[in-house]
Amino acid sequence: MADTVSITFVDPEGDSKERSTTIDRGKTLLEAGHTAGVEIEATCGERGRCRTCRVKIISGEVPPPTIQDTVQLGHEEVRENFRLACQTKVIADTKVMALPPKAEVGHQILSSDKSLADDDRMILDCGVDKYVVKATTPTEEHHQTSDWEEMLSVLPDNVSRDVSLEVLRKVPGAIRAQSGNMTVTTFNDRIIDVEAGDMSEHKYGMAFDIGTTSIVGTLINLETGETLADVGGVNPQAVYGGDLMSRIAYAQFDEKKLATLRGRALNALNDFIRDASQQAEIDAAHIYKIVIVGNTCMHHIILGVDVTYVGLAPYAPVIRDTLSLPARDLPLKRAVNAQVCFLPIVAGFVGADTMACVLATRIYDSEETRTLVDIGTNGEVVMGSKDRLMVCSAPAGPALEGAQIRHGMRGALGAIEKIAIDDDIACTVIGDTPAIGICGSGLIDACAKLATVEVLEKSGRLRRKNREDLPELLRNRLVDTPHGCEFILVDEDKSGKEEPIALTQADIRQVQLAKSAIYSGIVMLQQVMDVPDEVLEEVMMCGGFGNYINTESAVKIRLIPNLPLEKITYSGNAALMGAQMALLSETERNRAFELSQQMEHVALAARPEFQDIFVEAMSFLGPETSVGWSTDLAPQEAVSGGD
Amino acid sequence: MADTVSITFVDPEGDSKERSTTIDRGKTLLEAGHTAGVEIEATCGERGRCRTCRVKIISGEVPPPTIQDTVQLGHEEVRENFRLACQTKVIADTKVMALPPKAEVGHQILSSDKSLADDDRMILDCGVDKYVVKATTPTEEHHQTSDWEEMLSVLPDNVSRDVSLEVLRKVPGAIRAQSGNMTVTTFNDRIIDVEAGDMSEHKYGMAFDIGTTSIVGTLINLETGETLADVGGVNPQAVYGGDLMSRIAYAQFDEKKLATLRGRALNALNDFIRDASQQAEIDAAHIYKIVIVGNTCMHHIILGVDVTYVGLAPYAPVIRDTLSLPARDLPLKRAVNAQVCFLPIVAGFVGADTMACVLATRIYDSEETRTLVDIGTNGEVVMGSKDRLMVCSAPAGPALEGAQIRHGMRGALGAIEKIAIDDDIACTVIGDTPAIGICGSGLIDACAKLATVEVLEKSGRLRRKNREDLPELLRNRLVDTPHGCEFILVDEDKSGKEEPIALTQADIRQVQLAKSAIYSGIVMLQQVMDVPDEVLEEVMMCGGFGNYINTESAVKIRLIPNLPLEKITYSGNAALMGAQMALLSETERNRAFELSQQMEHVALAARPEFQDIFVEAMSFLGPETSVGWSTDLAPQEAVSGGD
Repeated sequence: MADTVSITFVDPEGDSKERSTTIDRGKTLLEAGHTAGVEIEATCGERGRCRTCRVKIISGEVPPPTIQDTVQLGHEEVRENFRLACQTKVIADTKVMALPPKAEVGHQILSSDKSLADDDRMILDCGVDKYVVKATTPTEEHHQTSDWEEMLSVLPDNVSRDVSLEVLRKVPGAIRAQSGNMTVTTFNDRIIDVEAGDMSEHKYGMAFDIGTTSIVGTLINLETGETLADVGGVNPQAVYGGDLMSRIAYAQFDEKKLATLRGRALNALNDFIRDASQQAEIDAAHIYKIVIVGNTCMHHIILGVDVTYVGLAPYAPVIRDTLSLPARDLPLKRAVNAQVCFLPIVAGFVGADTMACVLATRIYDSEETRTLVDIGTNGEVVMGSKDRLMVCSAPAGPALEGAQIRHGMRGALGAIEKIAIDDDIACTVIGDTPAIGICGSGLIDACAKLATVEVLEKSGRLRRKNREDLPELLRNRLVDTPHGCEFILVDEDKSGKEEPIALTQADIRQVQLAKSAIYSGIVMLQQVMDVPDEVLEEVMMCGGFGNYINTESAVKIRLIPNLPLEKITYSGNAALMGAQMALLSETERNRAFELSQQMEHVALAARPEFQDIFVEAMSFLGPETSVGWSTDLAPQEAVSGGD
Repeated sequence: MADTVSITFVDPEGDSKERSTTIDRGKTLLEAGHTAGVEIEATCGERGRCRTCRVKIISGEVPPPTIQDTVQLGHEEVRENFRLACQTKVIADTKVMALPPKAEVGHQILSSDKSLADDDRMILDCGVDKYVVKATTPTEEHHQTSDWEEMLSVLPDNVSRDVSLEVLRKVPGAIRAQSGNMTVTTFNDRIIDVEAGDMSEHKYGMAFDIGTTSIVGTLINLETGETLADVGGVNPQAVYGGDLMSRIAYAQFDEKKLATLRGRALNALNDFIRDASQQAEIDAAHIYKIVIVGNTCMHHIILGVDVTYVGLAPYAPVIRDTLSLPARDLPLKRAVNAQVCFLPIVAGFVGADTMACVLATRIYDSEETRTLVDIGTNGEVVMGSKDRLMVCSAPAGPALEGAQIRHGMRGALGAIEKIAIDDDIACTVIGDTPAIGICGSGLIDACAKLATVEVLEKSGRLRRKNREDLPELLRNRLVDTPHGCEFILVDEDKSGKEEPIALTQADIRQVQLAKSAIYSGIVMLQQVMDVPDEVLEEVMMCGGFGNYINTESAVKIRLIPNLPLEKITYSGNAALMGAQMALLSETERNRAFELSQQMEHVALAARPEFQDIFVEAMSFLGPETSVGWSTDLAPQEAVSGGD
């Protein structure tokens, strides 16, 4: 199974000029265009800084948008499956319409300009401004003044006179180093940095999604929205407990242990800031804004705020407000000049990460009722429309992030992310290398496909009876061990480890607990809001699965309801995308606070009917149940049912 | 020469009921009253918290007011020589009018109430408020909330929603420790502390005057204005240079040395905070506001701001603005919850200490032209009225603070502070102990009295010719040593040291440089503002001389112009008093900023005529020149010419 995909380019004038090419997965649509001999312009040099390479996905799996797609194209076009060819990595066979460049309407859109705002591109108002000025130092003739006043006098009136010690200490040197030529940086009109010379080009920010299991971050050029580096890794707190409750239990009533967890997270962030700066070859002192999202527990731990009561009924957070503080207060020593912004929290188990997903998906703006499902160690479900939003949090555990699974791993190089089963099993591995483990999307796919071929019973038990009815190759993969039954996904000789990659009965039970928690959350909100399946316009799955999730498999294992597959979309790591949006736009960051105050939280634990729904949701769909009750399955089927 | 003074009490009804007593210097007027059998009420228990012991000084030296005098009596009464008997230490023979208690008009005066504001007592609006509230913690029924929001909901609307990490970390514990009963402290409506239980009684502040030579501080009850402890000592930076310029030279272009100076000052402040808290038996965590005044150099050093350019023409400060920052930012670790406020600076050599003197003397409110002279390591002179204020700074050096003088010392136990010369010399020593040195007021007195008896020539040279004309006892005190001539003030057998206490020729030269710098500053402003001596209503001398300065001697040595002595007053450590006022009143603190922007700075160095004035001012008045050209010298003469 080669890791290549087929891309077909359609001319906007008609289908007569179709050109196809085969290209490695992970390459961009722009590269595919070049291979296919289709001319797509990329004026900015493939940096996501312009709109000239704009294309529209006609069929096939639509890749989640990048922050550059959102910045350059706006939410409406992104939702209509427009993408920047230079930023979009091909993940499956796709049909693409190449488009003539849309007329540029100016880079930044100000909210006051209605006609431009209608364009629906994201407002780039990150709050960070750099002013290049020429200040004079005090003279004999005008001796009754100060460096600070001289500097202020050449800055606009909106700049605040307030000053921090850190900034003040830099002023006398900076104002004199280059004869008064200097750059003053403000965040929301308060001065946060002064430098000698013209340093206006260097204006960077970072967005972080701090999950219970993993941490991911992006370094972004605040002027252009360009992504300069991606970083990520396991949350180093994980050794103190894999899920939220065990993490809280560790630090409960114990300041020192809280400090330990906090130190680990801060160290990781500092390392990521260093790594990202090195990758992008920038000075971390030029990172001026950092947006952090994460669940309430991560949020509190990083702030050094007691999580004891987050872990005790009624699981109340200490604070829900949006926060903005200097990096040195945390401290994040690698980004000395940054302001760190935390998105708000809705309730104890509905944290800033969920708010970021709400921002990224714009569900608050929807005419129809939609639901977003953020699959992490907790699974948050948001349902509603522009009229009303409700939210709940389902305790999924870390299984779908690859944790507490024998060969589980993040969606990184060597992870099985896709599975096909016929007479035997075929695994797609990220990077096309020997498999070293299985990630969340692989686990979902494996369970679904194994259930389809009846290796897995609806109850979630690996088949024990009548194994002789199975194809031989599959049968041989079912192994009984002293610890229970398991299914060999990759044989030892093809594995990247020194053992076969297997899925154990215990692994499957973890997946079941996770998926039924999330499924129950969705059903619960449907009941509370009186939203039958037919009314649900879209289920937006979010989470750190990488580029791919098989929505059909997600339905098959009853992670999400059995809806027409075209109503099920995958939005990628929406929490990180939301953090990036708040990084690039104070409008978005402020919106998050308003939304957090309006959303209604449904506490699942307080609902007696939840347990019944949860138990009922444990089973998988059997081979007899068809997936996707809509008749229009063609595009999804073409891809996920293929190879 | 016994260290007692005679106090006479006069009845307000007439002089018929005069009662006198002799009492130790340093006792209070209230104690004198009790000894004399005069009934003076002190309802508050002699704590300066009420007005019942109010008296008026009729004649004799008027002691400088304390902050309690100002708080309880107001500026107008203080200027009319009213004092609180319980707070006023007797310093000289005095005639006092005991008064029936003035009707109380309520303790706090709000500026909005015109009739009370007319009363002219100081507005107690320190900016620190303590709210005792009962908060509920989040419940199952109301789960979509947070500790922070629950606490805010029981606080007034004016309290800001902004929060620091330090405060936030205390909330979950404090809200739960006593069933929601808690005390929330704000400074200018921003929360700076939360505590369990009712802690409203504990609301303290400190005022510091950080001089080049010494540091003094006061711990004050912010609710009542009561002084709880006085602390002070030598500025431990002094080992790196006695005067400002040598201190600046040490730290110039050298961050590490700047950090050394800063560390020494901060350590001293931390120690003073600890000492004051121990003296008053309070918890330093209940110190919520600290006001610091000091010259530009001290101000910048404590902030860790480069003083390089403060020491180079045009001697511009880095910042002049009023500053307010959390103690942890400095850091002042002993006062974890305090906000530290720095009064503003006028110009490089006119610092926050001068602004504090302007506040304390209310010269900005004067109908007539007055001048205030703050005698420290630099001598600042402010001249003007409510219409206009000008200021200059004269480089006096530390001599009048007792530094760089062989036996020089602060005005503390064992210091010669007063001298009488007839056939021989008689020294008054603070605490009536054997002398161990001489302080500023003693130096002024010594030079003046020695000039009067012609031991000292007008030029400042110790007499070499015709010594045989001097009384024998004085003649014997003039000793020629290999290092030059000196005058023995206290013989070895009466000294508290193992050597005689002497005044050297070099000492006298230091005093001359200091006094002529200050004198020239006054003359310079008189010239610039066109203020002849006759127009000058008052010369207010300020400085850390302790309780006493002989104004006649100050005129004699030409420290200040030869004005009628009743026009020369001593305001004590007005810088510390101004800091105390800004501590107790945000109205005063805000006023300081306005004034700092309005005052006009005269740069002496930029005036070519200054050198001539300075040289001319070096000499003393000879015995032939009479001091105090006014005819009405009676009260001053009675005291300072006595014994």
